[in-house]
Parts: sequence; structure tokens; C-alpha cells
Amino acid sequence: MKKNERISVITKILSDHPNEVFSYNYFTDLLEAGKSSVCEDVAIVKNAIELTGTGYVETFSGASGGVVYHPQVTSAEEVSILKEIADQLQSPARKIQGGFVYYSDILSNPRYSKNIGRIIASKYGEMGIEYVVTTETKGIPVAMETAHYLNVPMGLIRRSNRVTEGATTSVNYISGSSNKIKTMYLSRRIDLKDKKVLVIDDFMKGGGTAKGMTNLMEEVGAEVMGICVIFVTRSPAEKLVENFTPLIWMDDENLEAGLRVSLHSEAEN
Amino acid sequence: MKKNERISVITKILSDHPNEVFSYNYFTDLLEAGKSSVCEDVAIVKNAIELTGTGYVETFSGASGGVVYHPQVTSAEEVSILKEIADQLQSPARKIQGGFVYYSDILSNPRYSKNIGRIIASKYGEMGIEYVVTTETKGIPVAMETAHYLNVPMGLIRRSNRVTEGATTSVNYISGSSNKIKTMYLSRRIDLKDKKVLVIDDFMKGGGTAKGMTNLMEEVGAEVMGICVIFVTRSPAEKLVENFTPLIWMDDENLEAGLRVSLHSEAEN
Repeated sequence: MKKNERISVITKILSDHPNEVFSYNYFTDLLEAGKSSVCEDVAIVKNAIELTGTGYVETFSGASGGVVYHPQVTSAEEVSILKEIADQLQSPARKIQGGFVYYSDILSNPRYSKNIGRIIASKYGEMGIEYVVTTETKGIPVAMETAHYLNVPMGLIRRSNRVTEGATTSVNYISGSSNKIKTMYLSRRIDLKDKKVLVIDDFMKGGGTAKGMTNLMEEVGAEVMGICVIFVTRSPAEKLVENFTPLIWMDDENLEAGLRVSLHSEAEN
Repeated sequence: MKKNERISVITKILSDHPNEVFSYNYFTDLLEAGKSSVCEDVAIVKNAIELTGTGYVETFSGASGGVVYHPQVTSAEEVSILKEIADQLQSPARKIQGGFVYYSDILSNPRYSKNIGRIIASKYGEMGIEYVVTTETKGIPVAMETAHYLNVPMGLIRRSNRVTEGATTSVNYISGSSNKIKTMYLSRRIDLKDKKVLVIDDFMKGGGTAKGMTNLMEEVGAEVMGICVIFVTRSPAEKLVENFTPLIWMDDENLEAGLRVSLHSEAEN
């Protein structure tokens, strides 16, 4: 294989497996090339990926040396991705009876879910996250993409007790949309004891679901490293959880006049 | 940017955006290189990607010329991916009261869901699929990955009527696990009229859910190009749908003696 082809292959492998460490030996065997050639190739890939602004490549030298690609999003790209979503939300056609805004299609579009997942993974990439958890249903694609970029599994919390999950741990929570007490369930086969967990939710109004997930994580002995919520309503200003990272704020006080949407990342900058 | 770096950047962009056509102009502008250089670079990337067995790169020449990466899975890789999953299912620890087998964690692991999605996309990549649909919940990650590789949106069918989906189209279906008549719902904001649709389901016993999805697709005027199901039980031999592509067969006649699992792809070969 020629040098140019080796570079293409290394790029493809690193890019397809974010946050996974590959040893130099893996590449020398695969590419049938010497270690010094592979080191040179990796240096070029490292440079190129960093030029694209999609992350950085870390290398470890020595006998147990290796290469790993950490995806990242620049703040300019984050604003541009979230702004495109926010603009769509403001379309009057998205208003639903009862003061809701339709956004299922956005989170079920791989383009958006991948980009949002990359943004979230970029924020939590250096915290040693071992598991991403979310409560069904609409947040699943984004949680999966985040898990992919962080190279960890996703733990799915159910809103009803399913026989296919086996024995479960459950907690009660206040459902924001209906203000009723509901129950959420996590299979006991998902072992989160002493695990560093990132909680993802698609939507927050009162914060009941996020609070429920935090309580459930406490029950199973997990350490919550962060709560990231894609869409958060401005009101009520007081949420049931204190520390969370919102991506897009929704101001639906007067939905008839059009939803006002703003990005958390812009407010911060 | 040097030639080597251009090759790395082109690989990264094509790999991150399967089945998306990029014009040569896009690359000449981005890389600040002449068209003949970019054509040479693309030829090298095409060769390298094809050497990895992860797909092929198609190029169109002429004024409206462009480049597109089609992911593919070799049959050897397909067998190896599915066999690893089948082996895990046979673990006695996965038995659940009531004759079920626990597999939620497998489909919620990005590594497996990405690989299964790539296998499915590889099978249907040349059929002009415009939408992937699935019924919540466990199949969502695989459906999303398939949609990503096919570069199309995913339409999520709900098992209960949610206010956040707006007006819905619904059909009744027979739920295999409980043998009860249930209802499934698709938001009317997802326009599938005359669209070529790929139906994905995580599990099939009687085929009630798949049959329901087929009926729902008929109601909304979509054309079902295929039904792909990840896990299918051997019994009953007669399913409610005739044409479907199973990935892994489960033989749970005598679960106490251990689940027997076989790959559809191996039987075919």
C-alpha cells in the first residue's frame, strides 16, 4: 500500500472509532508498513484532522504507544448547527395544539442527531464519562450519537416496566407535561455502580424527568457527571434540577406570536 | 495544504457523510487546490477506501461532477459482526423470566448498532430508499444508523398517541408478545406519500408489529421497499408478513437448554 493510501486508511479508521485507542502495532500489521512510516503517516493525519476543526488526534509514544481521535466542535460550528435547528423551530407550522412545538423529526434526522451528539461529546469528552443514559423516546438518537463519540455504551431508561428488560430499579418522578407522578425503570442488568454517567434529555420544562434520572442514578450508585438537555423552556425559571447544560432555550410564553428561540452557547460567548 | 493532508481531509469528509454527493468544486474551494489535483486525490481515496472493504467511492465526471461514498459490508464482515452478537445472546445470564432473552444492551451499544446499521444499509443501498421507519423503542438506534448510512431521515412510529407528535395516522395491530390488539401512531407531519420506505424492526415473533407497520405505510401512501428485522424467532414458522430479511434467527423452543442462535447470512451462503 502506498503512503497516500495508508494515510486515507488511517484517517478512515480513526474517524470511524472516536475515543478508541489504536496501537501503532495495529497499523503496522494492517498496513504492512514499518513503525517509522506509520508514525509519519499518523503525524500527517493528526495535522489534517486538526485543520478541519473536527477534533484532535492524541499520540502516545513508547512500547505501549498508540493513537486516538477525540472529536470536537468549534464554538462557531456549534452556534451554526444549533442556530439552524432553532430557526426551524420558529416555523409557525411547528405549533401543536396545547402549546407544544413539534421537533421529533429534527431529532430523528441523522444529520441533526449526529451534530448534536458531537456537540455534547465535545463538552464532556475530557470528563472520563463511562455511560450515557437517557429516558425514552425522542432523545435516544442524540444519546446514542453522544455515546458513539465518547466510545461508551448507552443505558436506556424506560417509562413503563417491560418484561424484556428483566428485573428493574425504579423511581417515581413528576412528569412536567402532565404534572402527574409517574415511574421510570432501569434494567438491573445495566450495572452503573460507581460509573461516571452523563444524563441526556431532549426536553425540559419543570425538570421532573431530569430530577427522576438523577434520583435513579443515585439509587444505582452512579456518579452523575453532567446533565445535558437539548431544548429547555424559559419558564418556569426554577427547575427541579440545578446544574444542567441547555443547548437551546425556548420561550413559549406567547406561542401564538411565534416561538422565540435562543442558543445557550451564544449567551455565554 | 499538502497533498497528503488533502487526502486525509477528503477521506474524513466522505466517510462522515455516506451517500452524500460532494461536487469537485466543493473540494477545490475547501482545499484551495486545482481540479486536477483534487481528481487525483479522490482517485487515491477511492482506492484506499475500497482496500479497507468498508464501501466504494463513486465519481461523476463533467461540469456537474462529484464524489459519493457508499458504505458496504463484505459478507465475511457481516458474518463476523452478527456472530459476535449471536454468541452473546447464548449466555445463560441473558435468560429472562417468561421465555425472553435480554438484548437491550446490545442494541444500545453504539458499536453494535452502528455495525448492524451498516449491514442493513449495505443490503438496501441501491434501492433508492427515501425514509427509514421503525416502531419505538429498542430498534431506534439501529434504524437511526441505517438512516445515517443511507443519508435519509428516520420516521418514528409511536406505540401510544403523544401530544408532541401533533395529528397522527393510526392503525391497529396484534402485539406478538401479549397477543392483544394495540394501536400504533405516525405523526401526520411526516410525509411519506409516494416515498420509498425501508421498515426496520428489532424483534419478530408472530410478525404483528411488522404487519402493522406495513399497513400503516399503506395508509400513508408509502411504498415499502423492504422489511429488515434484527432478531427473528424460529417459531411460529408462519409469520404475519411474508417478505422480510432476518439477520439473526432465535430458536427458543427449549430456552432452558440454552438459546440456539443462527445467522441468516450463513444459511444463505
